[in-house]
Amino acid sequence: MHCWKRSRRSLRVHVQLWRRRARFREEVHSALSGPGDFYTALNQSLETAPRVAVATIVRTRGSSPREVGARMLVRPDGATDGTVGGGCGEAEVWRAALEVMQDDQPRMVVVDLTNEIAMSTDGVCGGIIDIFVEPWHKNGTNLASGVLDAVQRHRLVATATVVSRSRGMPIALGEKLLIVDGQPHGGAFSWSALQARVLADAPSVVAQGQSQSRTYKFDELDKPEVAGQVGVFFDLALPRPRLVIVGAGHVAVPIAEVGRLLDFEVVVIDDRPSFANAERFPGADRIIVDDFATALDGIEITPSTYVVLVTRAHTHDVHALRRIVRKPAGYIGMIGSRRRVYAVFKLLQQEGVPLEDLLRVHAPIGLDIKTETPGEIAVSVGAELLKARRGGGAASMSDLLRPQYRYSLSKGDADI
Amino acid sequence: MHCWKRSRRSLRVHVQLWRRRARFREEVHSALSGPGDFYTALNQSLETAPRVAVATIVRTRGSSPREVGARMLVRPDGATDGTVGGGCGEAEVWRAALEVMQDDQPRMVVVDLTNEIAMSTDGVCGGIIDIFVEPWHKNGTNLASGVLDAVQRHRLVATATVVSRSRGMPIALGEKLLIVDGQPHGGAFSWSALQARVLADAPSVVAQGQSQSRTYKFDELDKPEVAGQVGVFFDLALPRPRLVIVGAGHVAVPIAEVGRLLDFEVVVIDDRPSFANAERFPGADRIIVDDFATALDGIEITPSTYVVLVTRAHTHDVHALRRIVRKPAGYIGMIGSRRRVYAVFKLLQQEGVPLEDLLRVHAPIGLDIKTETPGEIAVSVGAELLKARRGGGAASMSDLLRPQYRYSLSKGDADI
Repeated sequence: MHCWKRSRRSLRVHVQLWRRRARFREEVHSALSGPGDFYTALNQSLETAPRVAVATIVRTRGSSPREVGARMLVRPDGATDGTVGGGCGEAEVWRAALEVMQDDQPRMVVVDLTNEIAMSTDGVCGGIIDIFVEPWHKNGTNLASGVLDAVQRHRLVATATVVSRSRGMPIALGEKLLIVDGQPHGGAFSWSALQARVLADAPSVVAQGQSQSRTYKFDELDKPEVAGQVGVFFDLALPRPRLVIVGAGHVAVPIAEVGRLLDFEVVVIDDRPSFANAERFPGADRIIVDDFATALDGIEITPSTYVVLVTRAHTHDVHALRRIVRKPAGYIGMIGSRRRVYAVFKLLQQEGVPLEDLLRVHAPIGLDIKTETPGEIAVSVGAELLKARRGGGAASMSDLLRPQYRYSLSKGDADI
Repeated sequence: MHCWKRSRRSLRVHVQLWRRRARFREEVHSALSGPGDFYTALNQSLETAPRVAVATIVRTRGSSPREVGARMLVRPDGATDGTVGGGCGEAEVWRAALEVMQDDQPRMVVVDLTNEIAMSTDGVCGGIIDIFVEPWHKNGTNLASGVLDAVQRHRLVATATVVSRSRGMPIALGEKLLIVDGQPHGGAFSWSALQARVLADAPSVVAQGQSQSRTYKFDELDKPEVAGQVGVFFDLALPRPRLVIVGAGHVAVPIAEVGRLLDFEVVVIDDRPSFANAERFPGADRIIVDDFATALDGIEITPSTYVVLVTRAHTHDVHALRRIVRKPAGYIGMIGSRRRVYAVFKLLQQEGVPLEDLLRVHAPIGLDIKTETPGEIAVSVGAELLKARRGGGAASMSDLLRPQYRYSLSKGDADI
């Protein structure tokens, strides 16, 4: 492969290390692909080495052998873990990583493979790849373990890193901010105006679900001396979202199927083993046979938890909703007629649940689309789950009814 | 069962016929449940009998042993086909049917089973059931064969029958209007004002997909001498809707799964046998390996046909869309970026396709919800199919872009 050869030819002093690296890669090659995999490897490396370098693809133009967010960890002895593209420029990046460990200066390596398209036999090289190479220290911030901890607790984790900046911008390359469930959770940018804009942007990055670079422009109106722009790379470590289906009746079956199509981890709860079983829910990741309140108490409700209440009775809805309505679920939806929903809301309001917590519930469940069958309800619910996760403007039934619920609950109406 | 006994006790002169009927039911019992099943049986009966009676449940209140639309066909010898509720009042209906065949007068039989709840052991009796009993004649209108013909051609068929009216309303009980794909297609109401209102109402009845009665009020402002109301029963014979997926790539696979959840008949088309095959589409009802235009020419496009264009290339989209854009499909959706869609529209506009036909196409496909994976696209498309079939206000991507496409296509812009 041409690009590989060219890069390797430019290696002179590092030939020996490179060979050792090649052997190491054969022994311990990891894709570092799961959320937390990279940070586990990073933490382990920092136990034995005072400093390592990490190379991350932060932007690509044209075809690229690896996607944005792909990473290679380089240890002081030149051993690597992960890859940023194999032959296509990786040797150049590896050399930069060794230098970064020497001078402790983060830097961007721009690998331009556009001249190699014609000669590349497998066609995977070809574009321009921006790779940010930075040092991580044993005694630096504990950001890596902070990320790992948050990932293990099933949180939405975004690590924002300054990867480029115009000359004179009041921030250093490599500054990091850890954002967990939308809140700052470790590290900080030395420039508060940038931090504010990055925090405001984080939810839309998380909704897209793809690690990515964003550019923040500061014009002269903001502050004349800092006009220019800053490139920030958002590295996401998102858990697989979890769909908790409360009630295992006939509507739950196709909802579980839609959840699987949307790649949710599907959990089904019912107190009737004749309903909550693997025959009825072959695609479910977990089936819990227990009373609804107990089962829900055993599930951590985080912003990546999506709860669908489709129990067989009003009273079960109340018990279940009471357990979760004030928790930070990414989504809570409840099936039921307009009036049944109102009765549940009113009861919980009387128990002291704040109005705004109740009005977060998507009830009646589903988008503003008419449905006749369980399969149709499931597709409408699936589209609503998708909207909650990714964003979008398609109206929900609850969007239409919320003003009326707010008005009637505020007035204390007995019925709606 | 109590209600059965009570009804049977009231039978006096018909005991012998009733016994013969009971034997007949054991021999040839049919649920008459599929679209057209009833009309097939009706046509067959009218070949041998000059006149038969048909009893139809047109309304229920409270629990009922059979649903609205359930029917029993009664022949002159008392033999029956189908059932309107077994023991619960059926004997009473059967007796009325024999009378209807004598005096040729349609009538409503109201079966009140509310007093029998406590005594009914199986709990299926209980409500109030309105059953319309009417004669059908061998030499009458050919409505029955008209329905059968339309059903066989995969059309949306609604038969509207006047089943009740206030005294003095200028229309007779039993008048019928056949509505096919939303248009009058046989029979007629003798009162044009009623016919206009029934035709205007038909699309929403078809969207609900359930046979049902609706009441039309005419107040004195309309015409003082005809103030009152008319009850019309809409009997639906709807084909299973058909989803034609044009292109068998990676997005088509989950779209086929969603189509199955929505109970569509799923047809997949591609010119590559390595993509269009039963391994990839285990739930498809039909897989066609042929070039897109030829395959589409072989499929009748009716208002119950839903076409999703997800081919691998712009040129295939153009070929496929050209074949169907002016046909009366219930839905046409096309995947693609905002600009790719514009390019396809512009090309077809230049070939002479009217703007309004192009703007009926749901493109870019899907609701206004962000998507990242094939499964997510499929759920968004499924929700859009559902909206097209059943109705609803959730916005589509094409709803947002239509004004811009209309403007740019009208102006002749090269790009958007």
